[in-house]
Amino acid sequence: MELHFMGTASAYPTPVRGASCIIFRRDSDCWMFDCGEGSQTQVMKSTIKPGKISKIFITHLHGDHVFGLPGLLCTIGQNSTQDRLLEIYGPQGLQKFLRVNLELSRSMLGFDYVVHELIPIREQCNCVKDWETWSVDHEAPRGPLHPYEKPGMSISADKQGVWHLLEESGVSVKASWLTHRIPSFGFVIQQASQPGRLNVDVLKSKGILPGPLYAKIKKGETITAPSGELVKPEDVLGPDKPGKKVVILGDTSNSDSIASIAQGADVLVHETTLENDMVENAIEKGHSTPAMAAAFANMIGARHLIITHFSQRYRPVNAEITDDCEDPSVLTLLKEAQEGFGLEKVTAAFDLMSFSIR
Amino acid sequence: MELHFMGTASAYPTPVRGASCIIFRRDSDCWMFDCGEGSQTQVMKSTIKPGKISKIFITHLHGDHVFGLPGLLCTIGQNSTQDRLLEIYGPQGLQKFLRVNLELSRSMLGFDYVVHELIPIREQCNCVKDWETWSVDHEAPRGPLHPYEKPGMSISADKQGVWHLLEESGVSVKASWLTHRIPSFGFVIQQASQPGRLNVDVLKSKGILPGPLYAKIKKGETITAPSGELVKPEDVLGPDKPGKKVVILGDTSNSDSIASIAQGADVLVHETTLENDMVENAIEKGHSTPAMAAAFANMIGARHLIITHFSQRYRPVNAEITDDCEDPSVLTLLKEAQEGFGLEKVTAAFDLMSFSIR
Ligand SMILES: [Zn+2]
Ligand SMILES: [Zn+2]
Ligand SMILES: [Zn+2]
Ligand SMILES: [Zn+2]
Repeated sequence: MELHFMGTASAYPTPVRGASCIIFRRDSDCWMFDCGEGSQTQVMKSTIKPGKISKIFITHLHGDHVFGLPGLLCTIGQNSTQDRLLEIYGPQGLQKFLRVNLELSRSMLGFDYVVHELIPIREQCNCVKDWETWSVDHEAPRGPLHPYEKPGMSISADKQGVWHLLEESGVSVKASWLTHRIPSFGFVIQQASQPGRLNVDVLKSKGILPGPLYAKIKKGETITAPSGELVKPEDVLGPDKPGKKVVILGDTSNSDSIASIAQGADVLVHETTLENDMVENAIEKGHSTPAMAAAFANMIGARHLIITHFSQRYRPVNAEITDDCEDPSVLTLLKEAQEGFGLEKVTAAFDLMSFSIR
Repeated sequence: MELHFMGTASAYPTPVRGASCIIFRRDSDCWMFDCGEGSQTQVMKSTIKPGKISKIFITHLHGDHVFGLPGLLCTIGQNSTQDRLLEIYGPQGLQKFLRVNLELSRSMLGFDYVVHELIPIREQCNCVKDWETWSVDHEAPRGPLHPYEKPGMSISADKQGVWHLLEESGVSVKASWLTHRIPSFGFVIQQASQPGRLNVDVLKSKGILPGPLYAKIKKGETITAPSGELVKPEDVLGPDKPGKKVVILGDTSNSDSIASIAQGADVLVHETTLENDMVENAIEKGHSTPAMAAAFANMIGARHLIITHFSQRYRPVNAEITDDCEDPSVLTLLKEAQEGFGLEKVTAAFDLMSFSIR
């Protein structure tokens, strides 16, 4: 399992830094998180094959997180002939966003897609200063779906403020909300726990040699030894290995409400748009500083923190440094996050970085 | 006056070739023609300042020509504080496209914009194979405008099939339609004719020396010589110098209907998506070959032809050539266009190319 960072910029893409887009890969299956303008071009530069993207999750509808989505779908459509269903999850309004973009451009796609919408709760709309004065219709336009669109779900929060997105072959995805200028979500990917280690010595002592029976007992079935003795899984299996938990947050100036489901994350991806000294500016714009990200990583007991979504004022760490250039770089943000969370436990993302989840 | 090519790709952007976007610059004023995904990043790589873009013209609503527009507006908004009105012209549906994108992303902009829509005529909709079976609502959603949107015009064709977009300080823009898979337009920029050369010898012989009187007579006013003799403009001004005519076409498989207003173009920008041997494929997809572009350039007596909108199968001419690479390059298309229109009279555009109009 890896995370691949396609773009690490806040606000808008530039020639040196793409807009928000992260790909989570397990085996050959790829899930995309956010799709800012230009993400398809970033994917082409990476080792990710666009045709392998099976699910897309959108944290919120700001342009730097979603304006690349219609173009990505068109390009996947032009280059793939296989039967597929692309599943897309995101805030209410995403169905309308995609349908209007694809209809007006008369983009036929050639593969099926479905948009499952997360319905925001009251608290999220209260974060939006002008929610009452600037009313926006988030409902998908009535009338027929796009010719390749399948009807999607409306997913509402449960009483704990958790959206349950999917639960399938060994993995589940949940979401909760974040404080931002518009409704914003964080996603928690939870891999199912894996069966523990087989005590091969015990099995052999009972005359059971490596083969299909080992797989059976690993799956939780009782097997029979040559002696006729029944061997139960709990006799020869160590404790379950917990599955990995990967937490990817959208833009946020306060992530507390997702803390309970993010608890114990193996990897936490948190935005740090501006440095600690600019905390007021950051919060006013709905964003976080490294100290805020570090505090949240401590609160949930994360194993590792990856910071991303950097203001354009911070030079990429790998960009050329010229003598007359006094701009701060991403190193400023990285150091501040390390101070708050630990030297070895923080990574600053950069475009096309891949990060192994172990 | 120059044309700056931001992107020269058909269908979708790649790391080596941006989606369609051309900037026409006269003095410091910049007009953008089409805005495919990633155009804002291409502009940042160029010598064009986004803040100098005062008008945007969209040939048609295919994604490779318009998906970059919402992001471009957001970025201009984030980086400019000046009062401005950005005027945008394009096919019916563009108001809805922009409003829905900017509303759902709650992008406030901070400067005013207006969208003037070109209403297609029957013939354009007849080009669309599935116009009847896949009905799309092109009307802007009822309800309030975007907070920064000013009400735009609906521009219909006159009896000659010409859309009159604007006429201002020394320049006019007209449009006519092209055959494509969706309604597509070409634009004709006509600079007003400039006054001819002053015959300074004659003026001096009448005792009129260089100064404000020269400017007066150039503007068409009659002046008085020291002798009391009246000197009329026609006595001392050479013939008017015709203004430049620049023709920029959208995607097209048949440009005949714009021929009359494109006649005598100083520069014609015409797409050549595929090579001559693939003419059937090109026409089926609503596109042109170099021979078709050359034939049209001949028909209108153009002075110079610039080809662009290249299929990704053609390597950019300036891309690295590797030994095992047998793909055709843009040179294939350039040679075919030169065969049809003249060796010296054709230029193949490439990303970030600028072309002086003399
Ligand atoms: Zn953002
Ligand atoms: Zn945001
Ligand atoms: Zn095109
Ligand atoms: Zn097109």
